This record gives sequence, structure tokens and C-alpha cells, in this order.
Amino acid sequence: MTGSTAAITLADLPLRPELVGQEPYGAPQLDVPVCLNVNENPYGPSETVRAEIGRAAAEAATTMNRYPDREATALRTALAGYLNRGGYELTANHVWAANGSNEVMVHLLQAFAGPDRVVMAFTPTYSMYPEYARDTHSRYVAVPRRADFTIDVDEAIAQVRLERPDVIIICSPNNPTGTTTGLEDIRRICEATEGIVVADEAYQEFVRDGVPSALDLLPTCPNLVVSRTMSKAFAFAGGRLGYLAAAPAIVDACRIVRLPYHLSAVTQAVARVALEHADELLARVDDLRRERDALVTWLGEQGLQTAQTDANFVLFGRFADRHALWSGLLERGVLIREVGPEGWLRVSAGTPEEMAAFRTALLEVLPDAARLADETR
Amino acid sequence: MTGSTAAITLADLPLRPELVGQEPYGAPQLDVPVCLNVNENPYGPSETVRAEIGRAAAEAATTMNRYPDREATALRTALAGYLNRGGYELTANHVWAANGSNEVMVHLLQAFAGPDRVVMAFTPTYSMYPEYARDTHSRYVAVPRRADFTIDVDEAIAQVRLERPDVIIICSPNNPTGTTTGLEDIRRICEATEGIVVADEAYQEFVRDGVPSALDLLPTCPNLVVSRTMSKAFAFAGGRLGYLAAAPAIVDACRIVRLPYHLSAVTQAVARVALEHADELLARVDDLRRERDALVTWLGEQGLQTAQTDANFVLFGRFADRHALWSGLLERGVLIREVGPEGWLRVSAGTPEEMAAFRTALLEVLPDAARLADETR
Repeated sequence: MTGSTAAITLADLPLRPELVGQEPYGAPQLDVPVCLNVNENPYGPSETVRAEIGRAAAEAATTMNRYPDREATALRTALAGYLNRGGYELTANHVWAANGSNEVMVHLLQAFAGPDRVVMAFTPTYSMYPEYARDTHSRYVAVPRRADFTIDVDEAIAQVRLERPDVIIICSPNNPTGTTTGLEDIRRICEATEGIVVADEAYQEFVRDGVPSALDLLPTCPNLVVSRTMSKAFAFAGGRLGYLAAAPAIVDACRIVRLPYHLSAVTQAVARVALEHADELLARVDDLRRERDALVTWLGEQGLQTAQTDANFVLFGRFADRHALWSGLLERGVLIREVGPEGWLRVSAGTPEEMAAFRTALLEVLPDAARLADETR
Repeated sequence: MTGSTAAITLADLPLRPELVGQEPYGAPQLDVPVCLNVNENPYGPSETVRAEIGRAAAEAATTMNRYPDREATALRTALAGYLNRGGYELTANHVWAANGSNEVMVHLLQAFAGPDRVVMAFTPTYSMYPEYARDTHSRYVAVPRRADFTIDVDEAIAQVRLERPDVIIICSPNNPTGTTTGLEDIRRICEATEGIVVADEAYQEFVRDGVPSALDLLPTCPNLVVSRTMSKAFAFAGGRLGYLAAAPAIVDACRIVRLPYHLSAVTQAVARVALEHADELLARVDDLRRERDALVTWLGEQGLQTAQTDANFVLFGRFADRHALWSGLLERGVLIREVGPEGWLRVSAGTPEEMAAFRTALLEVLPDAARLADETR
């Protein structure tokens, strides 16, 4: 190829055909006062935790010239210890970790999906799943949920028999609806497939009292993977640490496809600090659950519909022109997410102040939205 | 699938067929006094740099609950600034960064290679290249180098016409041989292909005086990518930061395939600290180049063959039983790498003390190796 580097465009380059015209994934990163768009935890770490993170990073830097522990054994042991608070008996061999749960999910798809293989999920669900499938050249099959966003398990099993998926992803609590899937339903899907079943529990710490984790099923469902993240409950989105629990054989499969030294020495050290301070970091989870429940109640009082939610966000609607409502909130300094089925919007649970700002802004914008709804009838 | 999670093995799981029996990539991580096996920089950061790394991590932790800058703009700007010390005029738009150069390389292959596409490299070369191809389902074509490990460019161009590769990787200085490829040769290969040409310059800072970087070619070779890493010259292997410089259109292609938020807030902050201290961290590069050159001379004096090297390592040989020699050194506390063509071994340039330990151990082991060579004749 000849020519000028300054003048070349993507159209001149041999980009893979399925990527042509694609945009990088991600919610808009806008600088507004109230960010309730990406289900972040609004509470940053305390001064104590920040100082310990600094100390741990400085200590990790002592051997920064050396490659990190490729197996991240100390971190995986700490993650197992955290999960074992729920009464489990997991070891580092049951746990895999990577730079965010999206890298964990790609490892699983590289090992068990890929070309000529099928990934199934239940929509509406997390919009990254088709991207993971695209990135691994897997075929993505979307099975619609019921109108209330629950999974119709008989229909799911019929689709499993028809499509023979290699990986089935059950997001529970489901993003962007907040819906959980019961353990008996997950068990039935595990038993109906020879593939891998991933329960994506990114928001599990926010469930209402009494809602169990799919970790309960691990001893008896050998093809089950439970995926978690430190981004949400641990308020560690900036640290990028996702993980899974599964049979050691599934962890071994991830070890084959991972890039060597995928977790930096600093990431490993800093995540361990966060895990040592789990009590402090998780203390805010109850506050957020209360804000979430209050938000559901309040939205109902305004005559709005909400999806039943076990996550740190609420899907609410429905609006004839949701984009107008989203824009109206943004003009008032409140950024939420235009995602999910047409007519719905998603808002994260934030601090009491952020929730108040959201409520104020919504009350200002709602009459316009109602008027728009009238006009489009 | 039913059964017990404790009892399940990889053979019971639907692992992709090409991964069956594969082992996770990586050199043995052994706890020995002298590690000269993975081309690490033996000099850790100073107390000043370590303290600043700690401060930067603690500061990044302030907003650890928020997702990091998905574009890593400040880091990419700093990386461009570092490269511009060589007289270039690069901006953040010319630079892409990821968790180690292996993630950079996978981004390139996801964008430009993949199923039904071809990746070409010149062997012996870096043993991760076929793994990148496998991970992206690309076909890997290995074109042999000459006996002196240089690339026969006429033969390379003939192979390019025959195989029509989508991505061509030229490792220069080449791992594990240390061989550089001249700019005119790289230009001819760029002009002979409609694919992308990656000059993997992981070891570029260690070249001998007067050996130029392929960055010189960027303005006139629009399909050229120059890949770099902070692992080696910056003594930052534990920090996991690889990057590339190329036309902005190529960076845009990487942005499409990257997982969102792939670089943690801490990684971005800590790498920026290292770049701010480039002078201090790079000061050791000259020491290592001198050790490397002295090592080449000394190995020659022992009657051994060495490959001409511009990297921080030396390929030497040849031994009838290289594994016996490798083991003999390991028994004496010196870990080098059994890699490259049969009969050769690779040793990294270390501190004067590490080099002395290597020489002492090698002198003890060499007579045995010679004897073994006699016996196998």
C-alpha cells in the first residue's frame, strides 16, 4: 500500500466487513453534575482505603520491572474468600479473574463459543452480549423475555433444543430490567443443555432480602458459571476487576485462552486491598437498595410503570418519546441511560442528593413528555 | 448437563476442538536467584518513582467508583509525547494503548485478521504470534528467515503475493534472535501488500547506535503500525502497558474492537507516572546495552555462536542438548529461556552481578554440554 498516512481513512483499510460502520461501544461520557447512567456506585472509597490503595501500589511498584503473577493466585484466593462469606467452600481453583467482567466473558466465549458456535441470551438484556459474540465470531441468538421481563423457561428450553447453544447467558439481576431468574429455572436450563450456562450476577449484591445466588447451584450444576464484578457493589468500576466462580475445569479453559500476564501487578494488589475492606465498601449497598426501593415507589406515585428490580437501577416508562425525556433531564444536569425496550429509560440508584436532583428534574420534564405522548396518539 | 462439579474435567466440557490439549502460554515462573528468562529489565523503579506511583494510585482511587476514561486520552497523549522525543509529530490520535502489547496485537488482529484471513510472520520469531492468530481464528503463515535470522525480502514479497496476508508482523529487534530489519526492507513489504504491516518494536530502545525506528516510515507508509511496550526499556512489565503508533484510521479500528474501559484508572495513572520519569527509567537502558554487548563478546570468547542482537538479550548456541545446559544453569540458580531454533538458548541482559552469576554457572556447565555434544555425534 502506498500513499499518505495523514490522508488514509478506515475505508481504505482492510477492516473486517462485519466491523464496517460500527461504533466503539459505550455510554456517552458527559461531564454533568448528576451521573445516573452507568449503574456506578456513587460512594467512593474512604480516605483509609485510598491510602491503603496507594501503599499497595507503591509496594507493587517495587517489582514493577518484573512480570506479575500470571495466575493471580493471591487475588483469586481473596475473591474465593469473599464469596465464601455466603457459606460456600470455594478455592482459588474455582475462581477466574480478568480486567472487568467483559474480559471474563470473552475468555468464556473464546473457550466454549467462537466460529460455528452459538451464544444464547434472553432479551432485553445487557447490550454487550452481542458484542462479545461478534468479537469471538460466535452466532448470537436472542430469545425474547416475557412482557414482565422474566424468562419463560419452557420456551427457553425449547429454544435450547432447537438452537443447541454452546454458551447460554442469563443476566440475573438482568441489565437493564433488574429482573432476577429463580434458581430452579437456572437449574432446568443447565440440565437442558450440554453447553455452558453463565449466570451473570454483576448486580447480585443489590438483590432484595431472600433472593439467592446461583452460587448455591454450583456443586450440582457442573456446566454453570457464576460471573461477578467488583465494579458495582465494591465501588471499583475504575479498578476493572471481574471474576467468575465455576468448576476448576472451566477455570482451566479460561487459563488456556487468556493473554499471558493479563492482570497487572497493580490491579492485583489494589483489588486485594478493596477485598480486605469489603465490609466498609459493601456497607453502602444497603443504602443503595433503600434508595432503589424508594425510587420505585416514587416513580409509581407519579403514575409511571417500573420493572421489578433487584439491581442498583430502575427501568421506568413508558414514554412515547423517551429521547425527549432523556434530553430534558440532561439539560437539567441529570444523565440517565436511554437503553432497553422502546419507551423505557434506566436510572441508577445514587446518593440521596442525586436522587433528589433526579426527582426534581423529572417532575419538570414529565408534563412535556405527557404532552408529547398525547401528540403522538 | 447433570453431575457433580467436583468431578467434571475439561474432557466433559464443550471446549473448542483447537484448544483441546493446549497449555496456557508462558515461561516457567520459578523462584530462583537469577532470572534471565523473560527479558525483564533488572532495575526496579527508584524510591521517588515508587512513591509517586503510590500517590497517583491513591489519587486515582478517589474516583475508583466511576468508570475510567474509556479513551485514555491523557495517557495516549503522554505516550505520543514520549515517541516525539525521536523527532516525530504524533498526537493521541496516532496512539493506541492496551494491557500489554499482546492486547494491542489482538486488537489489530480482531480488526484486520480473523476467520478466513491470514497473519504472516517470519520465523523464528515471538512465540505468541501463533497464539494471537489462534485466539482470533486467523490462519498463521510462517515464512522462514535466513540462517542468520534476517528476512529475505524478495522471498517475503513472493510469499506476500502468494498468501495475500491481511496482517504481516515484523518483529524488529526480533525475539528471540535480536535481529533488526532495515527500514528499506520494511518499506518494500508495506508497498507489496494491501494488508496491515506491524513492526513490533518491543525492544527498540535497546538497539545499537544508528539503528532507526520504523516510526520514520509512518508518514509515508499508511498501512504501517509500530508496536511498542513499556515492559522492557521502562522496566514496567508488572504495569502491563503496550501501545502502538499508526494512522488515526488504524487507531479508530482498534477502538471499535476493544472492550469498553479496557484500561483501568490505576493503569492509566501509574503509566503516566512512569512516562513522566522516562529519563530516570531509560537511564538504565545504556547499562543494559553495554552488558548485552559484553555478553556477546564473552560468549564468542568461549567458542560459542551468537546471533547479532539489538535487543536486551542474546541468542547463543549451538548445543546438541540445549535442555541439559538449561537444566544445568537452573541447578546453579540461573534461569534462562529454552526458546528459538533447536540448539540455541536465550539469555537476557541483567545487572553486572547477574551476568557474573550467569558466566560462572555457564563455565561450570559448558564442559558437560561439550561432552554431551561429543556423545551425540
